[in-house]
Amino acid sequence: MSLSGTVIVGQSGGPTAVINQTLIGVVQACLAQPQVFTKVLGAIHGIQGILDGKFHDFANETQANLELVAGTPSAALKSVRHKATPADGTRIFARFKELGVRYFFYIGGNDTAETTNIINELAHAEGYELTCFHCPKTIDNDLRVTDHCPGFGSAAKFVAQAFMGDNLDNRSLAGIKINIVMGRNAGWLTAASVLARQFPGDGPHLIYCPEVDFSLAAFCTDVEAIYRKLGRCVIAVSEGIHGPAGKEIISLGEVDSHGNKQLSGSGALGDALSDILKAHLAKTWPEKKHRVRADTFGYLQRCFPGVVSATDAAEARQAGTAAVAAALAGVTSGSIAFRRTAGAEYHIETFVTPLPTVAKDTRPMPRTYINAAGNDVVTAEVVPYLAPLVGPLPPIGQLKF
Amino acid sequence: MSLSGTVIVGQSGGPTAVINQTLIGVVQACLAQPQVFTKVLGAIHGIQGILDGKFHDFANETQANLELVAGTPSAALKSVRHKATPADGTRIFARFKELGVRYFFYIGGNDTAETTNIINELAHAEGYELTCFHCPKTIDNDLRVTDHCPGFGSAAKFVAQAFMGDNLDNRSLAGIKINIVMGRNAGWLTAASVLARQFPGDGPHLIYCPEVDFSLAAFCTDVEAIYRKLGRCVIAVSEGIHGPAGKEIISLGEVDSHGNKQLSGSGALGDALSDILKAHLAKTWPEKKHRVRADTFGYLQRCFPGVVSATDAAEARQAGTAAVAAALAGVTSGSIAFRRTAGAEYHIETFVTPLPTVAKDTRPMPRTYINAAGNDVVTAEVVPYLAPLVGPLPPIGQLKF
Repeated sequence: MSLSGTVIVGQSGGPTAVINQTLIGVVQACLAQPQVFTKVLGAIHGIQGILDGKFHDFANETQANLELVAGTPSAALKSVRHKATPADGTRIFARFKELGVRYFFYIGGNDTAETTNIINELAHAEGYELTCFHCPKTIDNDLRVTDHCPGFGSAAKFVAQAFMGDNLDNRSLAGIKINIVMGRNAGWLTAASVLARQFPGDGPHLIYCPEVDFSLAAFCTDVEAIYRKLGRCVIAVSEGIHGPAGKEIISLGEVDSHGNKQLSGSGALGDALSDILKAHLAKTWPEKKHRVRADTFGYLQRCFPGVVSATDAAEARQAGTAAVAAALAGVTSGSIAFRRTAGAEYHIETFVTPLPTVAKDTRPMPRTYINAAGNDVVTAEVVPYLAPLVGPLPPIGQLKF
Repeated sequence: MSLSGTVIVGQSGGPTAVINQTLIGVVQACLAQPQVFTKVLGAIHGIQGILDGKFHDFANETQANLELVAGTPSAALKSVRHKATPADGTRIFARFKELGVRYFFYIGGNDTAETTNIINELAHAEGYELTCFHCPKTIDNDLRVTDHCPGFGSAAKFVAQAFMGDNLDNRSLAGIKINIVMGRNAGWLTAASVLARQFPGDGPHLIYCPEVDFSLAAFCTDVEAIYRKLGRCVIAVSEGIHGPAGKEIISLGEVDSHGNKQLSGSGALGDALSDILKAHLAKTWPEKKHRVRADTFGYLQRCFPGVVSATDAAEARQAGTAAVAAALAGVTSGSIAFRRTAGAEYHIETFVTPLPTVAKDTRPMPRTYINAAGNDVVTAEVVPYLAPLVGPLPPIGQLKF
């Protein structure tokens, strides 16, 4: 019999379209076992809510509203970007003792896994009996161990559909179009743009991921070659691109509390690349007027209502229920991960991986998923990986000319 | 009996998610009357295709593919931004005579209506018997006469859903968020952000349309007031905002062939407003670190596959069939317009309005749709107008705290 006590569940980091599926997965599984989970509290704004004593008691929710919330993008408990410090630890355990907390489920990415791991280690150090689980979430798909991350499939669906529309737009009014895609260290989301290619000649014609050093000179040459050949060029660029040794392409300012530079929420990178291309073409092809545009997908791609992968939603729910099942089975800490089962048909199973295997460091896309020139993905590698996570895309027709 | 001859249909201007519904509406209605419409040709890249002799014969298409194309965003015949000149007119009529063209249907916005009108007037001047119809299309919703424009409902749905997601994102991780929405002269699409408000306190908290002169000082004061009250602020800003007498807010560069300045395809306006707000808050509220972000929705909002209003799609088809029906009924020129029928339930009927009533000038949003301060829309006016055009939005849930 598992130790009985209060559950605290929280959400942390950037939101996704399906992060509430995981939340409701945890909540419903806990509410179903009231003899073990005597109270189910949501920490409002993650560990900030624990520090401030701000909780939501899920006993006050109807099943119907929980289901409605599960299908709603972004963190229903509100989120936070705050890494637990040892001083926080002392305050957190005082709160846990006060509330009789024996279970902590924290939904988020690698920074969240790190905080979960810190709390778990502090519990051990204090001799406080606590079950600590991290439930994966990130549109970046950059957690280690797991095959993929809840939230990614829906963001990848948005990116694929955005490029499908933008390719059609660019096909109808030709020019050069740069689209900047989220993903600080990993090119997974940028790579998902490849799914937009439905007909021969479709864009994106070039894909730049942060796993390969970016060269402005090579970029200009690549774009011009496609543009001269097709009369147009659609380009997917990760917001995380950088030169050798991580050198910035353009100078950026702000840094968040995890030491991460602000990449999103500004059109600066796309505009800079657009200006560089215009200047390049003014030299190499001065006789033509060039239409060069850049869009930065920004926050839209991470929690757009109505553009949700059904597989992603179901798996996100499963990540929550699996964490509670593991806790009930007596596992006292870990992070939920997915692996694909053998066989031609896509199917996953969940397993528990130790918190330190997921905390801190991220997983880039394998170099083998990117072509030798570093300006495209390898379709045969990437599409079989991505397609089942994203699910069916809107049908596209083309007139026969 | 109508004069029999070849039909030319074309698409012009910025694409929309449903512009091919109108195209296929025209094509299917014409193919159904082969004794009148002896041949149905698509002009590739609009009048550029007529000048260059590039056509697509719709006799070579299957019904199944036409339906697939109808449901595909962006201009399947490819588009153009080119205003007919008298010199073009001479070449166009030479081509029309060569092909036995007696019917011309041109799908687009006010610039397209102008070109249609020019061709119609040239036909009269030359004594060439030609039936000339303009079919409305614009996400800007700024055509005169008609109640609303095909393409707008779907773009408005995208904007509403984008703001729903972004409001949830901003609610979970608080800060100031600016979103720049398309619409050069008219605030209709920016106003559609109001549909994102589902719960008390939901954003957008401020909405700035180009129908009211924009003041940076008032903007900073408005935003700070909301931000101090709610701890967050989501703002909808039209790309077309300007100071008194049309003065630019920030200096912009390129101009297209219709003399329109490039507004989209750059994050410049959003980034400038973001910098201005940061500088303002650094003075008025220096003790707090402020998170200010801007996204420019850009081209995504005009033809995003999978985010389509069913009403908009059906009405876009109707605009095409109505033009052919009018031509068959002996009307020799005009633009198709919509009006709402009397009664509580939303229903439209089509009618023909003379080309000059739609060409050139655009229709702004009525001043009565915007509040006195010029920083929000009047919900009671705008929502009943918009809601039936956009249709149902994804359900949103909220935990009860």
